[in-house]
Amino acid sequence: MATLTTLALDAMGGDNGPSIVIDALTQALTTFTEIHFIVVGDEIELQPLLRQAQLLGHPRVTLKHASQTVTMTDKPGYSLRAKPDSSMRVALELVATGEAKACISAGNTGALMTNAYFTLKTLPGVLRPALVSAIPQQHEKFSLMLDLGANPVCDSETLFQFGVMGAVAAQEVLGIQQPRVALLNVGEEETKGNDVVKATAVLFQQSPIINYVGFIEGDDIFANQADVIVCDGFVGNITLKSCEGLADLLLNNIKDNIHEHLLTRWFVKLFYRRLQRSWNWLKPDHYNGASLIGLRGVVIKSHGDANARAFFSAIEQAVAETQRDLPARIRDCVEQVLLEQE
Amino acid sequence: MATLTTLALDAMGGDNGPSIVIDALTQALTTFTEIHFIVVGDEIELQPLLRQAQLLGHPRVTLKHASQTVTMTDKPGYSLRAKPDSSMRVALELVATGEAKACISAGNTGALMTNAYFTLKTLPGVLRPALVSAIPQQHEKFSLMLDLGANPVCDSETLFQFGVMGAVAAQEVLGIQQPRVALLNVGEEETKGNDVVKATAVLFQQSPIINYVGFIEGDDIFANQADVIVCDGFVGNITLKSCEGLADLLLNNIKDNIHEHLLTRWFVKLFYRRLQRSWNWLKPDHYNGASLIGLRGVVIKSHGDANARAFFSAIEQAVAETQRDLPARIRDCVEQVLLEQE
Repeated sequence: MATLTTLALDAMGGDNGPSIVIDALTQALTTFTEIHFIVVGDEIELQPLLRQAQLLGHPRVTLKHASQTVTMTDKPGYSLRAKPDSSMRVALELVATGEAKACISAGNTGALMTNAYFTLKTLPGVLRPALVSAIPQQHEKFSLMLDLGANPVCDSETLFQFGVMGAVAAQEVLGIQQPRVALLNVGEEETKGNDVVKATAVLFQQSPIINYVGFIEGDDIFANQADVIVCDGFVGNITLKSCEGLADLLLNNIKDNIHEHLLTRWFVKLFYRRLQRSWNWLKPDHYNGASLIGLRGVVIKSHGDANARAFFSAIEQAVAETQRDLPARIRDCVEQVLLEQE
Repeated sequence: MATLTTLALDAMGGDNGPSIVIDALTQALTTFTEIHFIVVGDEIELQPLLRQAQLLGHPRVTLKHASQTVTMTDKPGYSLRAKPDSSMRVALELVATGEAKACISAGNTGALMTNAYFTLKTLPGVLRPALVSAIPQQHEKFSLMLDLGANPVCDSETLFQFGVMGAVAAQEVLGIQQPRVALLNVGEEETKGNDVVKATAVLFQQSPIINYVGFIEGDDIFANQADVIVCDGFVGNITLKSCEGLADLLLNNIKDNIHEHLLTRWFVKLFYRRLQRSWNWLKPDHYNGASLIGLRGVVIKSHGDANARAFFSAIEQAVAETQRDLPARIRDCVEQVLLEQE
């Protein structure tokens, strides 16, 4: 019998409660037959849900009680100090002790980053963990973008490392050989931007292992100009969220068009449903997990308003990163870069 | 007879050449009967175009020769040093000398900002000019966002002034009383973001004349949460351009949907055309002018790939700002703020 890989699910995070986690788990047990899941959270709440889903006593499901829950409004520092027995923290500790290979949570992003950093620590040589997500490109391709909010302020060394880690992730998870790494900036010329991006560009240019393709502007984020797009967490977070805001505005605009025209209503509604599906796919952090990389273990953040389909997608991502042992690949690559810099 | 207001048009800027400027001028002469236009550029090229449009000798059209043209790839510093007789610079000088009230150009953005700053100077007390544009909100409303790229690095005093200038513009140009001013950030809590946005928030909170509504996140840019959205030019430029990139991706995605389904093709094409029109409206800097505010004169930047409709829209904006004497209103308000701070 093959050894099972274990993943820890924070069942209490997210806006939609534990039931979406249990639904996603049901699907994951069928899809991934060599994965064992530890479901972490309030057993009083979880036992009936697991029973209802006929998963109580399932050979590949373990329920682990945690007496506290991090709420969506808890400050990160508070969650760390006041909630040592939260489902989120307990799930992360299972990764820290080696009992699980990955933690998946739809909980409070700030709290997850803080608890993960505290519990798992960064890999040797890694300055800061980064939040990375796959963003859609033309022709249904994907690129990775980081940092999406873990680090609102970054120096050039940190941005450079994000490029290194992102390249490893693009290669291992997206299967892209020699991924093109680009820096997000306000222009393509070398003289553009602030001092930090200019200094980071120099580091990329000097590095023999990075396939650096230069600066890209905002309108090229979705134009398949790069496989890894590097920026600080301030720019990354605002950029991605504003795109989601625009997608919502456009969808509402289409809805308004529907209401205007009685005759075309039925027809357009069909089309609208197709679009809505496509656009859900286009909202990356809602419909795919974001990974917190650079840590000694796999941590996947599913969106706060994730449904079962989105949480399942986050589990899929955890499986992919675990199978490729992404933390070990990142550690090796960062080590190589540090040796080259000596 | 009422005194005519004079506007200067840089006829040589933009990717589409002077003909779109002449087309826009034709429309503007009909719409604005009390405006006199000085068309600045190469007379050898412009005379035939004006003749063809039956505008040569028009009582409200003056042709002013300029022997040089700033190209879209000229570096800003180079355009300033090497092209003192460019159509852009001559048009700006007409504003500086008081011969014209506003300059409208579809030329190279960086060059326009540099030449405008050099030629017109900032208003008394204004630290930096800012590029501002109206961005669409739900229910066809608009908000102003600034800075969109004139200043990639800003301190808190500068961002605070952007809020002051943006509020004046929202009141004068959009007609919004007590405009809600918000700061773009990675979270709504006071502890979020970098030191500059935190310090700017304090300045807004202390100011009696600003209706400050706090931080907003990227997904609220289009959600009618604020009338004036303040950020540095690095974040503003990348955010707006990435939204444009997303709109293009979505439009392509719809095109792909059309090709997939033969039966629905005809019908969806009609709808697609409607969408394309709406979305053009949703690409603010393509289809409305961006204003460079904080200077001693009105400067409107039309998009590089502006068509006649877009250039006309930039002229409309110049008329609105000129009629309200926006520079004087900004000067008064900045003066008041400086007095309060003493």
